[in-house]
Amino acid sequence: MSSTTQRVFQFGAGRADGGADMRDQLGGKGANLAEMARMKIAVPPGFTVSTEACLHTLANKGRLPEGIESEIERAVEQVEQLVGARFGDPASPLLFSVRSGARVSMPGMMDTVLDIGIDEATFEGLARKADYRFAFDCYRRFLQMYADVVLGVDKALLDRLVERATDDADCGGNLNGAWRKLSELADAIRDASGQAVPTHGREQLLGALRAVFASWNTPRAIAYRRIHGIADNWGTAANVMSMVYGNIGPDSGTGVAFSRSPADGQPGLYGEFLFNAQGEDVVAGGRTPGPISEGADAAFAGAPSLESRLPEVHVELCAIVQRLERHFGDVQDVEFTVERGRLWILQTRNAKRAGRAAVRIALDLLDDGVIPNEAGALALVDARMHVEQVLHAEIVPGCERPPVLATGLAASPGAAAGCVVTDADEAEQRAAKGEAVVLVRRETSADDVHGMHAAKGILTATGGLTSHAAVVARGMGVPCVTGAGAVEIAEGGSGFRVGNRAVAIGEWITIDGTVGAAYLGRLPVVPADLSPALGRLLAMADGHRRLGVLANADTVEDARRARSFGAEGIGLCRTEHMFFGTDERLVTVRALILADTDAERDAALARLLPLQRADFEALMREMDGLPVTIRLLDPPLHEFLPDEAEGFAALSTHLGRPPDSIAEAVARMRERNPMLGFRGCRVGIVHEAIYRMQAQAILEASLALRAEGLDPHPEIMVPLVAVPEELAHVRAYIDEAATSLFNQHRARVDYKVGTMIELPRAALAADEIAAHADFFSFGTNDLTQTTFGLSRDDAERFLPQYESMHLVAHNPFATLDEKGVGELITIAIERGRATKPGLTMGICGEHGGDPRSIAFCDRTGLDYVSCSPYRVPGARLAAAQAGASSTRKGV
Amino acid sequence: MSSTTQRVFQFGAGRADGGADMRDQLGGKGANLAEMARMKIAVPPGFTVSTEACLHTLANKGRLPEGIESEIERAVEQVEQLVGARFGDPASPLLFSVRSGARVSMPGMMDTVLDIGIDEATFEGLARKADYRFAFDCYRRFLQMYADVVLGVDKALLDRLVERATDDADCGGNLNGAWRKLSELADAIRDASGQAVPTHGREQLLGALRAVFASWNTPRAIAYRRIHGIADNWGTAANVMSMVYGNIGPDSGTGVAFSRSPADGQPGLYGEFLFNAQGEDVVAGGRTPGPISEGADAAFAGAPSLESRLPEVHVELCAIVQRLERHFGDVQDVEFTVERGRLWILQTRNAKRAGRAAVRIALDLLDDGVIPNEAGALALVDARMHVEQVLHAEIVPGCERPPVLATGLAASPGAAAGCVVTDADEAEQRAAKGEAVVLVRRETSADDVHGMHAAKGILTATGGLTSHAAVVARGMGVPCVTGAGAVEIAEGGSGFRVGNRAVAIGEWITIDGTVGAAYLGRLPVVPADLSPALGRLLAMADGHRRLGVLANADTVEDARRARSFGAEGIGLCRTEHMFFGTDERLVTVRALILADTDAERDAALARLLPLQRADFEALMREMDGLPVTIRLLDPPLHEFLPDEAEGFAALSTHLGRPPDSIAEAVARMRERNPMLGFRGCRVGIVHEAIYRMQAQAILEASLALRAEGLDPHPEIMVPLVAVPEELAHVRAYIDEAATSLFNQHRARVDYKVGTMIELPRAALAADEIAAHADFFSFGTNDLTQTTFGLSRDDAERFLPQYESMHLVAHNPFATLDEKGVGELITIAIERGRATKPGLTMGICGEHGGDPRSIAFCDRTGLDYVSCSPYRVPGARLAAAQAGASSTRKGV
Repeated sequence: MSSTTQRVFQFGAGRADGGADMRDQLGGKGANLAEMARMKIAVPPGFTVSTEACLHTLANKGRLPEGIESEIERAVEQVEQLVGARFGDPASPLLFSVRSGARVSMPGMMDTVLDIGIDEATFEGLARKADYRFAFDCYRRFLQMYADVVLGVDKALLDRLVERATDDADCGGNLNGAWRKLSELADAIRDASGQAVPTHGREQLLGALRAVFASWNTPRAIAYRRIHGIADNWGTAANVMSMVYGNIGPDSGTGVAFSRSPADGQPGLYGEFLFNAQGEDVVAGGRTPGPISEGADAAFAGAPSLESRLPEVHVELCAIVQRLERHFGDVQDVEFTVERGRLWILQTRNAKRAGRAAVRIALDLLDDGVIPNEAGALALVDARMHVEQVLHAEIVPGCERPPVLATGLAASPGAAAGCVVTDADEAEQRAAKGEAVVLVRRETSADDVHGMHAAKGILTATGGLTSHAAVVARGMGVPCVTGAGAVEIAEGGSGFRVGNRAVAIGEWITIDGTVGAAYLGRLPVVPADLSPALGRLLAMADGHRRLGVLANADTVEDARRARSFGAEGIGLCRTEHMFFGTDERLVTVRALILADTDAERDAALARLLPLQRADFEALMREMDGLPVTIRLLDPPLHEFLPDEAEGFAALSTHLGRPPDSIAEAVARMRERNPMLGFRGCRVGIVHEAIYRMQAQAILEASLALRAEGLDPHPEIMVPLVAVPEELAHVRAYIDEAATSLFNQHRARVDYKVGTMIELPRAALAADEIAAHADFFSFGTNDLTQTTFGLSRDDAERFLPQYESMHLVAHNPFATLDEKGVGELITIAIERGRATKPGLTMGICGEHGGDPRSIAFCDRTGLDYVSCSPYRVPGARLAAAQAGASSTRKGV
Repeated sequence: MSSTTQRVFQFGAGRADGGADMRDQLGGKGANLAEMARMKIAVPPGFTVSTEACLHTLANKGRLPEGIESEIERAVEQVEQLVGARFGDPASPLLFSVRSGARVSMPGMMDTVLDIGIDEATFEGLARKADYRFAFDCYRRFLQMYADVVLGVDKALLDRLVERATDDADCGGNLNGAWRKLSELADAIRDASGQAVPTHGREQLLGALRAVFASWNTPRAIAYRRIHGIADNWGTAANVMSMVYGNIGPDSGTGVAFSRSPADGQPGLYGEFLFNAQGEDVVAGGRTPGPISEGADAAFAGAPSLESRLPEVHVELCAIVQRLERHFGDVQDVEFTVERGRLWILQTRNAKRAGRAAVRIALDLLDDGVIPNEAGALALVDARMHVEQVLHAEIVPGCERPPVLATGLAASPGAAAGCVVTDADEAEQRAAKGEAVVLVRRETSADDVHGMHAAKGILTATGGLTSHAAVVARGMGVPCVTGAGAVEIAEGGSGFRVGNRAVAIGEWITIDGTVGAAYLGRLPVVPADLSPALGRLLAMADGHRRLGVLANADTVEDARRARSFGAEGIGLCRTEHMFFGTDERLVTVRALILADTDAERDAALARLLPLQRADFEALMREMDGLPVTIRLLDPPLHEFLPDEAEGFAALSTHLGRPPDSIAEAVARMRERNPMLGFRGCRVGIVHEAIYRMQAQAILEASLALRAEGLDPHPEIMVPLVAVPEELAHVRAYIDEAATSLFNQHRARVDYKVGTMIELPRAALAADEIAAHADFFSFGTNDLTQTTFGLSRDDAERFLPQYESMHLVAHNPFATLDEKGVGELITIAIERGRATKPGLTMGICGEHGGDPRSIAFCDRTGLDYVSCSPYRVPGARLAAAQAGASSTRKGV
């Protein structure tokens, strides 16, 4: 680093070296402090040491850059002049705080050390500002924070040491007694950490500075960066600010204010204030803060408000917070301190907010002119978290939650409270009586679907984000937590256990499928709501997106919901879900699979044809005028067969053949790796009659709708194609069937035939496959499985550990893996379009609802994403954000 | 096609328009006919209609190119002049044969129509050449062939019609009677086919010509081309040749001669001759041909030889055949006809030959100077078929085989005859008594290995080329046929059935693992033999190859065999096979997997460590001075556990814990898709202790050998890496273990750490993975599975049908799929070398022994291939052929 580069940036008294646009050098906190100083807002004077100084220090074994100490010396002198006090001056001591601050807010780094600059001499000077108790309070805080964040003393031990030092309410009784008690604390800290707390202010300051820089590389910080894609070479800045004292008397205090309510978005100052307190006291508990304004939330009843005691400060704060909101173009979360009636702003940043608040705030700020354009408003809402919170029931924000009973995967968003049941039939029976139930199982299967539908929520011990439970629950919009490994279902149907805690049938639990947690007891839940506000926001989003948003939907209910959420068609209808629909259907499908003769097979197909035709007719009627993409049968046939003696017996009576022969057939069809087995178009090629029946049902349904004057757009999708010959073969017989049907009906409909690209082989051969396809739909679930050689069903055995070891940044089934799966998609897009420039392409895997993956889809030039109905609104927003961001960045 | 292009090429009487270098235009047969004519060899004059004429005809709905009929007319006239007879001339009729002939020999196309040009008038003329019986014989042949190959009359029906026409030994008694009988045959053919046989010579000729061209597009021909990678746009030529008559009297006849024996390669004329016969009579059976030379094979005893009856012709034939061999530089397979003592050569081509013959011939031709260089000699031996035939026992070439009992996959080459057993223990017991047994099972598992080892051959009803049976059998060198779907194992251990035929225990069967067939009874088998001739050929091959050839070997026996076959190291040692080694080992491994406490786990590891160390020490001792690549544990742990009550009980007594708890643990570990599950480095990351133990065993074994003064080259291979972080993590703890061991022993060995590239994700991330790897080994089995989304274990359910439908050209597990898997390999090579230019790379999947795949490896710049020991010789040859071909073609 050249010594001419500026590394120390002053702020305060209406001036600053930096500004809001210098986040890279000053970090977010430092940049905003500088900006506020320039706005003539009262910020305690100080200076920011740059991120470059941090990187230099880290690259040189913790040695600060040469010459920086004298730069800091000069900066300290300037602060002394502005404040009118001197660092280390017993007569009028100046103290400092030191805080870290990276480009983006990042947990895992050193937080704050207050009251730097106390030694025996200044201790006395400090006491003179108020009394010896004030000096005691400041020095105690310093020692505690320094020991904690700089020396890394064990928190529990430190708490004990501090308690011992402060057990005397009298603080030692006088100045000397106070000093003595705190010197003992300093000694105990030295003994615990092996390092002494420096006794001189300059050493304290440099120690805190080095600790801030070093904290960039704590394992937790590294892990956070890995996960959030933050570059290691950003570094953190350190903010050194002159202390102001909220703990100096009854007309002092410290608080946090929001420019609008972060809970519901209501306009108006919102926040908490604690008199005669400093720093973290507001959030640390112990003392209860009061509200900032009068007439605020009843929760504050009892504690005095800032407005009532210090009305002028309140008026000033209101004005400043509003100015900041307008200036930064977003709701502000402001930390401030009042010292003897004088207001100081310590920090401002964009506020975190709940989903409903986010939507309201985005619209209000746009309407109020705080945000200049729609794209800016759209960017204020998180397309996944906020939208899901609005769309799904949630545990009342801010309510007190008991300790988590079990954690698992956030498999289907929303919260639900209900009585525990572990049997699907019982779930259905209790629900029929009006009881709220949560179905708890090791895993779910097709046999549980009725119980899942009846339940308010689902909790499973095993299974990933794409397990049966997860997929079905999301489709139904039922909150679901899967893979909660600690849950052990008790034998005999008595409930379940987590460790030593047995949870009985009928006991209340609450699950949060948005975060993946389960709690004992009944927590308050806000019901789901597609609010008019969200509707307005999404309509706005639609004007900003290039990507189409379709839905994965298998039933008329799904389709209706999807359309009401703004889906522009069905991107994936899984016909096998129709096969599971009712007992009658399943028996027919089983008869088909087990048919020994062509006659038996044809009879079963003839029974299925009208059922499928009716399915497709209803679906396309619901989606009139929009494309409906129907995937031909995909799973291995044995998935439709029973797998135990009981099932064989039942099927035996239905089919009139011995149970043994059924058991034998099932055994013959069993596969080692069904995911990689005889499924998809492989079945449709070996058993052509099944696909022919499905194609006929689709086309006949379309003709019937056409005859009614409706406008069906069937798109027939062939799954699991690996080589172009497969698609060519299947397409040939579908086209042949269509021609013959159209001749027979003397009418025709436009239909498309396309394929899933869900195998690496297909992606690489997309040039050849495109010749036979009208569209490509990337099945990113299967493509992820095969690209990684990783079964969704089995991945939970080690993937969580991989995530915690940071071997993977994201679960690749949740967020599309751009390096591997993404490259295959990119290759397929390029090659597919090279063969057929107008080829329509989209994705229909789970990733279609994930904002980061949607951004990838936008960037690579896909035409649409398709996701489960409840994710359609979030996808519309994410697509708009991706579009806006690519426009902005010129990508 | 421009009308100036020559489309009709004359040959005969010492002159020809074409030559041997014109295969593209004239086809192989036509080019060689032209070449022989130029060599002044007596070829009946004729002409070849070019492949371009064929393509033009096919592109124009069967219409011959404009103007070609008059060109043919002129060509016929020239032949008339040379022969001194006229087409359609009753006085001196000229007849023609028409034969197809593409660039390469290709079944599925029209073969031959003889005696074209007979009508009522020429019939009489023909009779005048000999007698009315001769005319009858010629016309009958023409009608039969024309009906068969041009009109496509059903063969069985045609045979009946011809039989009816020829039942009269007197051929109608006179000329008129003969004509009448054949006219009836012609009518019957017309009725059967709906088309009349043309009655005029010119129409007959053009009909045959059109049929030849059209036969390029028969489904069988298209299929053959698809499979063998022959371009559709080559087309076939048609050869029109003046007839010479082997059926004109006792001093006439037709034969086939080889310049050396195609069975064993012995020099000297070899072949068969049939007096007074024409065309296909020699091979059609019915009449038994005699030998060409006196004192030949005893099989001919009885029939007169050509040499004895026509000694001058024999001398002339010898001279011509030798000239042809020298001229074409390979053993020739020559068809000839003798008409009234005059020799005519009808065709010459390179002879097909058995493995032992191929090796001898290649060396003899080189030694004799017939072939100018080694590369030419190497090219004469098929690296798979011929070498396998030499290396493995085979059914005596030419012996009469009964009809095939069951066909399956050629899983492990070689032939074996033995008594049927269906139980591994019984196989072992009978073998111990000296009985030859063939083990027949539905499938095999680790429990059957002792029986497989004891058996002479293995036959399974299910499983593919990489099933347990196939992999283990190949490793042992035991002939094996897998996936013989028709085989049904009888319950109760009474044997097996194929359809209605029950085969009892103890009954003899013979299997041919080189082609994938099983026969009833005991066929004669020639034992395996690594002949000195093959040794010399392979030593020669080593001088022509760039690719290294290593072996996949898990045991000392494997390693020894591999080294004796010329392997340059071990490219893949699968440590899990060591875990299965003995009962004691398996119990220890199971104890490890089921360990509840660290102490139990550590105890099991401590018992395994010395065993593994001894394994590795023995292996590296055997391969002293050569690299030994050891793959850390790869399969899912549950593969080592029993899966039924019996096994739980046994293990329960061993481990001293209740069977229920074992059953429960096994159930807990069971996976939906084990191939995509918790295996490979995933296990080594979650259960680090296992890999640490293995690494320690490898390094300690190396140190021990080093201390003895030996030269071990351990290469530690980490399987199933998907992301670079996995390899980095495992490598870090291996390197750490190595450093600590080296310090402890005060000695060190060079070792490498590398990875399998066997997942598409790894191939795409090869740039990042290379940073942590010393070598890449492409695991093409798994890479094929994941690229295609296709489990080897389950693929046999539909892959054979795909092959027969020509949806895939090759089984991708046998021959590397260049479009998909190959591209991933190419990408990985490029990216890996971009990061680390010196990175060593090879393949260790099944494809390492497949010549076509080896050629791909050579082209893409891999460093080595690794294959099972018995495939090492073939791989050495294939690598040399690939090297030579790439040099020749300048690829």
